[in-house]
Amino acid sequence: MILTVTLNAALDITYRVPELRRHASHRVTEVVERPGGKGLNVARVLAALGHDTVVTGFAGGITGEALRAQIRDAARSAVSGALTDALVPIAGNTRRTVGVVDAATGDTTQLNEAGPTIAAAEWNAFTSAYATLLADASAVALCGSLPPGVPVGAYADLVRRARAASVPVLLDTSGEPLHRGIAARPDLVKPNAAELAELTGSTEPLRAARAARRRGAHAVAASLGADGMLAVTSDAAWRAAPPERIAGNPTGAGDSAVAGLLSAWAENLPWPDRLARAVALSAATVRAPTAGDFDRPTYERLLPLVEVAPATAVG
Amino acid sequence: MILTVTLNAALDITYRVPELRRHASHRVTEVVERPGGKGLNVARVLAALGHDTVVTGFAGGITGEALRAQIRDAARSAVSGALTDALVPIAGNTRRTVGVVDAATGDTTQLNEAGPTIAAAEWNAFTSAYATLLADASAVALCGSLPPGVPVGAYADLVRRARAASVPVLLDTSGEPLHRGIAARPDLVKPNAAELAELTGSTEPLRAARAARRRGAHAVAASLGADGMLAVTSDAAWRAAPPERIAGNPTGAGDSAVAGLLSAWAENLPWPDRLARAVALSAATVRAPTAGDFDRPTYERLLPLVEVAPATAVG
Repeated sequence: MILTVTLNAALDITYRVPELRRHASHRVTEVVERPGGKGLNVARVLAALGHDTVVTGFAGGITGEALRAQIRDAARSAVSGALTDALVPIAGNTRRTVGVVDAATGDTTQLNEAGPTIAAAEWNAFTSAYATLLADASAVALCGSLPPGVPVGAYADLVRRARAASVPVLLDTSGEPLHRGIAARPDLVKPNAAELAELTGSTEPLRAARAARRRGAHAVAASLGADGMLAVTSDAAWRAAPPERIAGNPTGAGDSAVAGLLSAWAENLPWPDRLARAVALSAATVRAPTAGDFDRPTYERLLPLVEVAPATAVG
Repeated sequence: MILTVTLNAALDITYRVPELRRHASHRVTEVVERPGGKGLNVARVLAALGHDTVVTGFAGGITGEALRAQIRDAARSAVSGALTDALVPIAGNTRRTVGVVDAATGDTTQLNEAGPTIAAAEWNAFTSAYATLLADASAVALCGSLPPGVPVGAYADLVRRARAASVPVLLDTSGEPLHRGIAARPDLVKPNAAELAELTGSTEPLRAARAARRRGAHAVAASLGADGMLAVTSDAAWRAAPPERIAGNPTGAGDSAVAGLLSAWAENLPWPDRLARAVALSAATVRAPTAGDFDRPTYERLLPLVEVAPATAVG
């Protein structure tokens, strides 16, 4: 199975209103709830691709129960892979995020709860569970921000444990947790262009990706939005671009890219195939009517058309 | 005990943000949850006043569980009266309301979910439970709007059942449910000035209150905001005014007035004392730091100072 870690999971609530007006009262015309947090998004796509997937991280309180119910629903709708909940219970309430979508324009106003502070004993319980889960994992993705109470070096610790267990580990985070985590030598990091620039100080993606490798990552796959992806490994560099511009909602496109990279890695596919899958899944996610899902016909149509070529620096 | 009915109960969530901006992302700095819906507010005040109180209506799903947990918390903090949950389970999820408060100005942007549709069998289960609860009730308050699926004549039916059981019944609703409910001859209705004008077509409160009596209410107690209350019964009319202007948040002031009227009714106090209690509780609710609570020292200070005098028409 593939393991995904979401330390700062959330219950994502989307409200649709005709038009949001400040300091007015609104009747919500549509409510959608889904599991939130990057690792949970990655897991949903992995399961849809046919990979047995286990999600871990933290869940607590009544919102934690709601999150787990949403994961059960997602597991039932997964096409072929099993989706298993191995979230570690905590005393606090799992945070909610509320996205308020203006029906007329599609613009979203986002409200994110901070979430509970993780106690030291809860963090210890998590690391024990993680070690057990690693024993059966063919790959692991560490995704998203850290909740209050978790040490800032948490990802470095989790990367080391995965490498000690010989499980390929992908790190997808930003800021200080990325700074610390990358030094522990993950197999792969997947920053976007802004995260890569923030990490390395370079805005030219190829140079920045090489600089990120020097900071410890064995490979770097940077998502470049509509331009596709750039990957740098120990012996090569590639660019992968979608064959056409896709209009839609980019929410979750980066998480789908992680699922594409990791699933192809677990299948021992070569790098160009990993990138093609990541780019096709990202584009199919932008196209999907529901944010974070991917449109399977678009994915299957685009997959053979993604152009993967050796990368050279620009600018 | 006193019974309060909240057919359209909600889980009220309040988010504090530094400043709400449309189409931006916000970190919520404070989250407060409490039971929502007029009858639940009334019940909390009744219990704080020392009356054993039972709440009924509907609750379902994970948000319904959260609502019930909040009621348990409120019951623990009630000063002297018991607060008992007799909500009837439903298949759907209890609705949420989200109020987003700008920390700088105190202005609130409100998002209200519609809530689940009540099935015919659920409505029948409720009316059976209501009949059983009436047998032990010294008074009943029917509060707030009707959820989808409940017949528009629901309050008329519930008023008739209360009167058949010789339980004094107060109706606090608006629009068509008030139109229908008042015709079933409740002992008391408590509209605000706008609801009274909408019901009767008259904007002069005393004339409007008398017109409301002609529509079926045995007595009418109209809340007039900072001006206090006006009551009209079969043989008298009073105005009750707070002794001073109170600045603060008027949320829940009308529900506290209902609790004041109903508790004093259940204690067989005369009309002027009912009004004094309602007005003092309303003002103490405006003054309280948390919306919907009342400030007990303010209540106890104002109660003997409320001026109650015979009412005459103005304008």
